[in-house]
Amino acid sequence: MPTNTQILLDHRPTGKVSPANFRIVETPVPAPGPGQVLVRHTFLSLDPYMRGRLSDAKSYAKPQEVGAVMQGEAVGVVEASNNASFKPGETVLGRGGWQRYAVSDGRDLRVVDAKAIPIQAYLGPLGMPGFTAWYGLNKIIAPKAGETVVVSAATGAVGSVVGQLAKIAGARAVGIAGGKEKCAYAVRELGYDACVDHKSPRFAEELKDALPGGADGLFENVGGEPFQQAMRRLNNFARVAICGLIASYEGAPTALPDMRIFLVKRIKVEGFIQSDHLDLRPQAINELAGLAIAKKLICCMARTSARC
Amino acid sequence: MPTNTQILLDHRPTGKVSPANFRIVETPVPAPGPGQVLVRHTFLSLDPYMRGRLSDAKSYAKPQEVGAVMQGEAVGVVEASNNASFKPGETVLGRGGWQRYAVSDGRDLRVVDAKAIPIQAYLGPLGMPGFTAWYGLNKIIAPKAGETVVVSAATGAVGSVVGQLAKIAGARAVGIAGGKEKCAYAVRELGYDACVDHKSPRFAEELKDALPGGADGLFENVGGEPFQQAMRRLNNFARVAICGLIASYEGAPTALPDMRIFLVKRIKVEGFIQSDHLDLRPQAINELAGLAIAKKLICCMARTSARC
Repeated sequence: MPTNTQILLDHRPTGKVSPANFRIVETPVPAPGPGQVLVRHTFLSLDPYMRGRLSDAKSYAKPQEVGAVMQGEAVGVVEASNNASFKPGETVLGRGGWQRYAVSDGRDLRVVDAKAIPIQAYLGPLGMPGFTAWYGLNKIIAPKAGETVVVSAATGAVGSVVGQLAKIAGARAVGIAGGKEKCAYAVRELGYDACVDHKSPRFAEELKDALPGGADGLFENVGGEPFQQAMRRLNNFARVAICGLIASYEGAPTALPDMRIFLVKRIKVEGFIQSDHLDLRPQAINELAGLAIAKKLICCMARTSARC
Repeated sequence: MPTNTQILLDHRPTGKVSPANFRIVETPVPAPGPGQVLVRHTFLSLDPYMRGRLSDAKSYAKPQEVGAVMQGEAVGVVEASNNASFKPGETVLGRGGWQRYAVSDGRDLRVVDAKAIPIQAYLGPLGMPGFTAWYGLNKIIAPKAGETVVVSAATGAVGSVVGQLAKIAGARAVGIAGGKEKCAYAVRELGYDACVDHKSPRFAEELKDALPGGADGLFENVGGEPFQQAMRRLNNFARVAICGLIASYEGAPTALPDMRIFLVKRIKVEGFIQSDHLDLRPQAINELAGLAIAKKLICCMARTSARC
């Protein structure tokens, strides 16, 4: 009899998260009840937003419960089903969390095409991160051909899609990432025109050099000092999509030292969360899947999802 | 023979502006050349944006020239005309600046109705300040009925129109102004539901008390500490129109201490300048004039313009 491997939140982190905040337990595989589906996960998702959920500070979503299985999206195969909408053997995307097996009433499950597209892509470019990238780029930044878009965490699950979509829109894409290796990957694999290493002691100058015509859009995933430097490079009428401020999740808040830039440059800054815009998700995922099938979008990256 | 009284910028201020920065001179009244119009000003405008123009720091507009007549809008009567579009006796709005008489080629002049509406209103609610209010409120904040809008410099040329338009849109309007007298005026004359004195030592608590349901919109004219307190009162999906940061023009920059609010509350902040949107000005002025004639908008306030 196979057992279920589950990763629970043991206690909330203060500052940096470590493996000690979690606990791995082995439990019996649950049996699906009436109307329920048993899913065997093949890929789970590990996303930056989860850091926020580990805290019980007031936010837009309920915090992760202590002692419970870590929440999150996962893809897997239907093992057994008492629900007419799902058949054993079908590949499904759901919110089963960090465990080998999950039972669902089916409301969170969606059957996905496992032939044309590698299934882990549904956790990345064709999933929540891809939709996040699509929304922030198209609905907030809305780049025109010839404009320049800066993307922080340029090689992450969201940033990697933003950069590719910006290029497809005819914009120049400049990434910010941590380390030479990530920057090389951003340019070589993802097609960024340039990528600047925020760990470089000359970061501010290097970013300026990479933006000879300034920036018209900034897709911000990180915050902190690199964000402040990128704000200094914005052109008139620039649009800034605040998608994440991961640098602030465990450390000091990200400040904007002078609001005058909003006025002098007529800048728009907008924070967003993809789950407020789920009505647009089918359109976005259709577009992204079309690009993936046409080989215009890299849709399976090691960085996007961890193998169970 | 009448003389022209002109107010020139003598030298740029550092910090607070004083009368010593200006110089009053008497010169001969100019004679209009071919195609030109001579206007005798009856009202001139003194606006917060002018503080920015006194500086030669890089901005969206050219700085005011030292030794030249102070730039600005003015209304007056055509005294003599060599331009077929303007007849002596007509009332015109123009950009003749701080002087009794101005000569124009007519390109900046617009004949205005001096019967239905007091002419100084064309420098205030039905002029640039009114259009500024209309644009920021309707195009950035876009309040829905039942929402709450906070307006700083609530009794100023722009703020006084914002508050009235917010009420007309069915929103709750809460002003911020400096001093009890201005606050009383805001509620009694302009129709604000409440107004909080930013000079009060209990300002932060009083603002909180005036916003039991938080704020969905913030029309910011000032910056500084009151702005930071207002940002703390914003609800999810709030919109902030940055129209002016007068507190920063002569003093310390206005900072935003923590960008996380953008994300957690999905806030939009947008800086704007009315002159980028002049295509919408005729529509706005028509609407504002309609409201003024219908007695729904106070259109002539002492605060709005100084008598020449």
